[in-house]
Amino acid sequence: MTGKSVAFSTVRQSFIDGRDSPRATLERYLERIAAREAEVKAFAALNLDGARKAADESTSRYRAGRPLSAVDGMALGIKDILETEDMPTTFGSPIYEGYRTNRDAAAVYALRAAGGLIVGKTVTTEFAARHPGPTRNPLDLKRTPGGSSSGSAAAVADGMLPAAIGSQVIGSVLRPSSFCGVVGFKPTYGTLNRGGGYDNFSQNCLGVLAATLDDVFLVSHVIAEKAGGDPGCVAFQGGPVPAPAATPTTLGFIETAGWEKASPAAREQLQGFRTWAEKQGVRILDRRSSAPLAAFEAATAEAMAVSSAINAWEFLWPLAAVAKHSAERISASMRERLDYAQKMTDADYQAELARREAMRVAHRALKGHVDALVTLSAPGAAPLGHETTGDPIFNVPATALGAPALSLPLLQVDGLPLGLQLIGQAHEDRALSAVASWALSFAAR
Amino acid sequence: MTGKSVAFSTVRQSFIDGRDSPRATLERYLERIAAREAEVKAFAALNLDGARKAADESTSRYRAGRPLSAVDGMALGIKDILETEDMPTTFGSPIYEGYRTNRDAAAVYALRAAGGLIVGKTVTTEFAARHPGPTRNPLDLKRTPGGSSSGSAAAVADGMLPAAIGSQVIGSVLRPSSFCGVVGFKPTYGTLNRGGGYDNFSQNCLGVLAATLDDVFLVSHVIAEKAGGDPGCVAFQGGPVPAPAATPTTLGFIETAGWEKASPAAREQLQGFRTWAEKQGVRILDRRSSAPLAAFEAATAEAMAVSSAINAWEFLWPLAAVAKHSAERISASMRERLDYAQKMTDADYQAELARREAMRVAHRALKGHVDALVTLSAPGAAPLGHETTGDPIFNVPATALGAPALSLPLLQVDGLPLGLQLIGQAHEDRALSAVASWALSFAAR
Repeated sequence: MTGKSVAFSTVRQSFIDGRDSPRATLERYLERIAAREAEVKAFAALNLDGARKAADESTSRYRAGRPLSAVDGMALGIKDILETEDMPTTFGSPIYEGYRTNRDAAAVYALRAAGGLIVGKTVTTEFAARHPGPTRNPLDLKRTPGGSSSGSAAAVADGMLPAAIGSQVIGSVLRPSSFCGVVGFKPTYGTLNRGGGYDNFSQNCLGVLAATLDDVFLVSHVIAEKAGGDPGCVAFQGGPVPAPAATPTTLGFIETAGWEKASPAAREQLQGFRTWAEKQGVRILDRRSSAPLAAFEAATAEAMAVSSAINAWEFLWPLAAVAKHSAERISASMRERLDYAQKMTDADYQAELARREAMRVAHRALKGHVDALVTLSAPGAAPLGHETTGDPIFNVPATALGAPALSLPLLQVDGLPLGLQLIGQAHEDRALSAVASWALSFAAR
Repeated sequence: MTGKSVAFSTVRQSFIDGRDSPRATLERYLERIAAREAEVKAFAALNLDGARKAADESTSRYRAGRPLSAVDGMALGIKDILETEDMPTTFGSPIYEGYRTNRDAAAVYALRAAGGLIVGKTVTTEFAARHPGPTRNPLDLKRTPGGSSSGSAAAVADGMLPAAIGSQVIGSVLRPSSFCGVVGFKPTYGTLNRGGGYDNFSQNCLGVLAATLDDVFLVSHVIAEKAGGDPGCVAFQGGPVPAPAATPTTLGFIETAGWEKASPAAREQLQGFRTWAEKQGVRILDRRSSAPLAAFEAATAEAMAVSSAINAWEFLWPLAAVAKHSAERISASMRERLDYAQKMTDADYQAELARREAMRVAHRALKGHVDALVTLSAPGAAPLGHETTGDPIFNVPATALGAPALSLPLLQVDGLPLGLQLIGQAHEDRALSAVASWALSFAAR
């Protein structure tokens, strides 16, 4: 392992004072990749020569006392849903095998411009949807790493990389983070420029998976600083580091549609956090004690159905465009989605968008009522098998809301990690980070 | 010429009753292309075999009494800013020479699925911005056709095609339509799916250029019906045909920032329309007679500066991503734009977005006050020379507003066409079409 739970700012200090170097640190990650990749299968492509060259340049900059940024020398993985100038971009589909676009996606451009070392493309499910890639959960190879940011979660969890980029349109950052035991962050919708990604879907959002809370904020900040947010949107304003820990006044525990699917052990874990929070003096609300929370839970009960319908319509094109010539190279689940979309009309889609907006209204009504919402990141530990990437039911509300959400690896079930999910108000990523910084002390209880 | 001012519905009737066929009609367009393309240079690529094959299939469908849609058999050009499965997509840049993406953009997918014949890619300026392509104005080869939808306007104006797709982020549909004497339509922002286009900029909108008002509505309708709008947006609701002519109660004549640049002859032309409208019993307002119009004009006075800044920031990526390896293949004007963007921050961008929103508020205040806004589509006829594509100053307000705008070839200066521009309220494309249908009778005055 290569310092899995050390924030990059600490590693970077060793670059500054000369005790270590970006190249030497990179080599330790590459050793880990060499040792484990055959089993974990986290990468769709690697550019070791490119990463080494970038590391040498970074090393020279630190020696000269002129690092480019706070991520200069940081080894990074990029979900294979984003374009890279030096590696193919397959979007997890055999249709795009070897596809090259000759440019970096906005986030990749930003990180490279800031001195980040782009080590490889991490495996995504097909088009960042449900059909799994080859990645295994490094904590138990017989289990799924979750999806769709499968390779990003596995690489970080296994110590192959300190951080990697993911994306979430339903539950694709928080679920794999939960299953692999890393920190997953999906910022407010639109705040990280998605340019050069596969799609422009109305819930899709870039996210960051890392070993530490510090690093998901650091990487998000650098992307926004160098490449902005999506066109027409506000860029990420969470800051380069999370806010200092602040004990929240009130937390709202939500038992979303996922609650019935949660295992007894998982529920017990959340209860443990709830009891601890209460002991810290936090006022705890839930749907039984708070009318606005009850209204919110009612409004979001169908978040999965709404998001699935929205997502299907938005997938009509581009799926139909490739189905035309490559139907046999599209998975059964994606063909089903296309069939579903082809029976929809824009009027159906507008009705779903209206239902989503009603959820957002119910969420905004919680502003000032709770400091954050708390729930599980998944119904339990990573499921056995690789046929599916697990159930995103706990992740979909935050995505539909366009709200910032974090998965913190604070819970355990059967000796495997389970994420604690915190959800904030849109554009209040920084306030959410103060709650998260506080929640991390649960680990030292 | 090939029936330049005949709506496709009329041509289609001849397919239905067997007097003509899609293949025979296509051949007449191809003859025109063969005769004129060497001089006009409207196309970046042609797929004549593909178009002929599609025309034969369409012909068979009509013979069998089973056409696919109201555009089945319609020959179409696609601005080379949209991906096509059968032709390269260069975005007007040498960096992308020969670039192939193996899929159709959403609009192309929609039109092909509806039986449209995709004849070729029409020339765009570099990345749909200012640096001109090779296209000449077919009405006077010494003049610019306008940009950025240069080839689409030229091909339609010259009778090479009945309609072509364009896009407008500043003035790229209405200006070339004005200079070439065709109908140009930029619908409400977001209503035509841009998927598979170059960018996702916050003002960019697909548009349609055609010989008739009927056809810009028909093509817009089919794109929206088959591929929807942009993710998260309402799809085009203008209908498959324009609304019947209805004499407006009130028209607001605007003298935007462009007015001072308008030639005396152009101003006189607009005055001619104004006088005619008044004689039709229309109440005419302008900034001198209407406080809301004066407020609107004040709010939009800086539309060009605001849009240029927004556009520059949104261009930071992707321009920077290709400048990294191909700086020498980017035009001087785009390098300047990149330099400008690199000095901006997200805070600067947010300030410009706020200024744009203030314009939209001032525009919405005109709802119910005027039925449409009327102005020129350009300061005068197409300028001589090919160093620039002309001034978009008259087009930028509607684009910044996200409002539907039409250029109708109703005015003339120096024997060359000049567009009359009509601007409606966002999502009121159909109401705008009723005004446009009425305005067309100005030609028969």
